[in-house]
Amino acid sequence: MSNTAGQVIRCRAAVAWEAGKALVIEEVDVAPPQAMEVRLKILYTSVCRSDISFWEAKVQIPVFPRIFGHEAAGIVESVGDGVTDLKPGDHVIPVFTGECKECIHCKSKESNMCDLLRINTSRGVMISDGQSRFSINGKPIYHFAGTSTYSEYTVVHVGCVAKINPSAPLDKVCILGCSIASGLGAALNVAKPARGSSVAVFGLGAVGLAAAEGARISGASRIIGVDVNPRKFDQAKNFGVSEFVNPKDHDKPVQEVIAKMTGGGVDRSIECTGDVDAMISAFECVHDGWGVAVLVGMPHKDAVFKTHPMKLLHQRTLKGTFFGNYKPRSDLPAIVEKYMNKELELEKFITHEVPFTEINKAYEFMLNGDSLRCIIHMDG
Amino acid sequence: MSNTAGQVIRCRAAVAWEAGKALVIEEVDVAPPQAMEVRLKILYTSVCRSDISFWEAKVQIPVFPRIFGHEAAGIVESVGDGVTDLKPGDHVIPVFTGECKECIHCKSKESNMCDLLRINTSRGVMISDGQSRFSINGKPIYHFAGTSTYSEYTVVHVGCVAKINPSAPLDKVCILGCSIASGLGAALNVAKPARGSSVAVFGLGAVGLAAAEGARISGASRIIGVDVNPRKFDQAKNFGVSEFVNPKDHDKPVQEVIAKMTGGGVDRSIECTGDVDAMISAFECVHDGWGVAVLVGMPHKDAVFKTHPMKLLHQRTLKGTFFGNYKPRSDLPAIVEKYMNKELELEKFITHEVPFTEINKAYEFMLNGDSLRCIIHMDG
Repeated sequence: MSNTAGQVIRCRAAVAWEAGKALVIEEVDVAPPQAMEVRLKILYTSVCRSDISFWEAKVQIPVFPRIFGHEAAGIVESVGDGVTDLKPGDHVIPVFTGECKECIHCKSKESNMCDLLRINTSRGVMISDGQSRFSINGKPIYHFAGTSTYSEYTVVHVGCVAKINPSAPLDKVCILGCSIASGLGAALNVAKPARGSSVAVFGLGAVGLAAAEGARISGASRIIGVDVNPRKFDQAKNFGVSEFVNPKDHDKPVQEVIAKMTGGGVDRSIECTGDVDAMISAFECVHDGWGVAVLVGMPHKDAVFKTHPMKLLHQRTLKGTFFGNYKPRSDLPAIVEKYMNKELELEKFITHEVPFTEINKAYEFMLNGDSLRCIIHMDG
Repeated sequence: MSNTAGQVIRCRAAVAWEAGKALVIEEVDVAPPQAMEVRLKILYTSVCRSDISFWEAKVQIPVFPRIFGHEAAGIVESVGDGVTDLKPGDHVIPVFTGECKECIHCKSKESNMCDLLRINTSRGVMISDGQSRFSINGKPIYHFAGTSTYSEYTVVHVGCVAKINPSAPLDKVCILGCSIASGLGAALNVAKPARGSSVAVFGLGAVGLAAAEGARISGASRIIGVDVNPRKFDQAKNFGVSEFVNPKDHDKPVQEVIAKMTGGGVDRSIECTGDVDAMISAFECVHDGWGVAVLVGMPHKDAVFKTHPMKLLHQRTLKGTFFGNYKPRSDLPAIVEKYMNKELELEKFITHEVPFTEINKAYEFMLNGDSLRCIIHMDG
C-alpha cells in the first residue's frame, strides 16, 4: 500500500467556481476512497466537448464549484473496502459511465447502459453516501461525471475504472475514455461497415474522425466526411476520409447530394454532431434495402427526430449508440491492445499538449475549434 | 406444352369497374405471355387488406377497370421467351414484388427490394411493353400489383413467381404470397427475438398474427398483443399471444403501460397497423440497451414518424421491413417447406372459404373485420 492510503491527500485541482469562468488551480483535499471506490493519481487528461458544455452550463443544470475532466489515464493510489479487481499501482483509464457487472444491462451481451453507474451529469457526489470527496477548507467541491480528472488525485467508483496494459503510454491512451472510443465503437460495434462499403460521417470533430478511423479499420472504401466547416477537411484526410461534402455548398438537402454521389445512398452513416437536422440527413442518406444509420452525437433536450415512415419501411435501419457500445471495464483493455498492436492510430488525434497550469489554454483550443485533443500533463 | 400455349385464353375474372363498386365476374381474354412472362392458372386466391384499399382508392391513384388479387397459388400454363426457370405444370405462388436476380438489391444478401420488379401499385400494365394482357372486347382491363389473381388465368413477370413443392396444398399455401410472409418474416428475419424474450405485436390482423406466429416459432416467452379491438384477443391466443393491451383501456401512452408490464420495455416490438402513432409507441416500448422495433404496416402518405433522439441513443434500434425481408423467388419455397414440416401453422389463418362467384362476400368479411383469410376457390 502507498503511504498515503487512508489519508486525505492535498493536491492541485482545476476548480470551476462559476459557469463559464476560467478554471482556477487550487489546493484541494481529496478524501480516501470509501467502499467500492478507488483513488487514482491522474497523470494525463484531456478536454472533451462535454467538459466545455457542462462548464458553460447554458442548458445543463449548473453544479458549482466543480472539478471537470473525464478523459484521462492514471495509476491506482489506494482502494476502498470491497475492491478486489484493482490494487495500488495498476494502470487505469477512468470512465464517465460504469459497469457494475450485476445489473440486467451489464448481464446483457448487447447493452453497456449499466443501471447503477450509467452517466449522470447532474450528480456532483459519490453514489455510496451522497458526499463529495473533494473539499477546500472543509467546503465541498463537486464531482463531474463520476471522474473529475482535472485533479492530481480523484476518487472514482470501481465500476468506472478500466485496468489496462501497464506498458501502454498513458499520455496517448488517456484519450480513449470518451470521444475516441465513442466514435470508434459506433463504427466497429454498431455500423459495422463491410469491406469495400461506403460510409458517411457527419461532423469531423474527434468523435467523427474516430468513427472514420473505425470505418478505415473496417476496410470501407469510400468514407464521405460531412461538415459545415471546410477547415476540417484537410485534417480528416489523415483519418481515411476520401470525399467531402459541405452542406452549405448545395441548394438541396445533403442526403440528396450523398444519394446522387453514391448511386442511391451510402451503406452506412454515422452522425456525430448531435444536431437533429444532421441526424435526419444521416438517416435519409443511407441506401434503401440495407442502409444503417448510427446516431452518436448528443441532441438538444427538446430535439425531435422526424422522418417519413416509408424511409424505414424501405429497409433502412436507425440505431443509436452510447460510448460506442463498449462496456467500459470489459472492453477498454482490448482497445488499448488494438493501439499497442498498431491497428488503431491515436497520435493523429493529439494536436496539442499543455502543462496542467495552462489548462485554460486547452479549453480555448477546444472552444476555437483549433484542437482535436489537447493532452494536459498533470505534473506540469 | 399445354394446348392453350400461344393462344388467347378466354376465362372468368372478377373485374372492378369502378372504385368501391362490387366486383363483377366477366369473361376476359388473357393474352399469351411475352418474353420473360408466365401465364398462370390460378386455383386459389384470397383477399388482403390492400386489395380492398386500392379498390376503394380513397387516397391511392385510381386505375380502373382493374383485376385485383395478389395472394394466390396456381400452376404454370405456359411461359414466354427466355423463361428457363419455370415450365408448364410447375406449382407456383405469384408475388406482388419481384426478384430479377440481376440488380444490386437482388445481389445484396440483405435487400429484397428488386430495382426492376419492386411493387408498383399504380402501374396497371406489364413492364415489357406497357400493355395489359387482359381485355374485354379488345379494351384493356388493368393489372394490379403485377399479379391480378382474381382471374382464372393471369400473366405475371417470371421474376414475380416462386416455384414451390408440388405436393404442397395450394388452398393453404396460397396465403403465403403477402401478409403471412410479411408478418412471419418481420419476426424471423428482422426482429429475431431470442428464446425466452418478450415481444409486443401491434395490430392483431393477419400480419400481426403472423408476426406473433414468428415470435412463437422463435421461442419468445411473452407475446403481448396490442389492439384497440378487444374482439381480436380470443383469436390471438391461438397464435401464441399471451397478454393483451387495449390502448383504449389506459390513460397513459401504451408504451408506458408496456414498459411497466415488462420492467422497462419489451425486447422486440413489431408494428403491423400502419398507424403512425402506433409506430411511435412500438418504438418507444422497447427496452433501452437492446430493444429492436420493426415496422411492417404501411403508413399514410403524409405520416411523420417523430421521436426524441435520446430514445435512439439509449441503444434502441428502429427498422422497417418489406415482405418480411424475404426474397420472393429464393425464399418462399423454404416457407412452404416450413409449413410442410409442421413448423408453421397456416390453417388457423383461414377462417372462411367461398366459391369464386361469391368473391364479393370475401371482400365483405374483410371489410367487416370478420375474417383473417378467406380462401376463394377459383373453380367455384
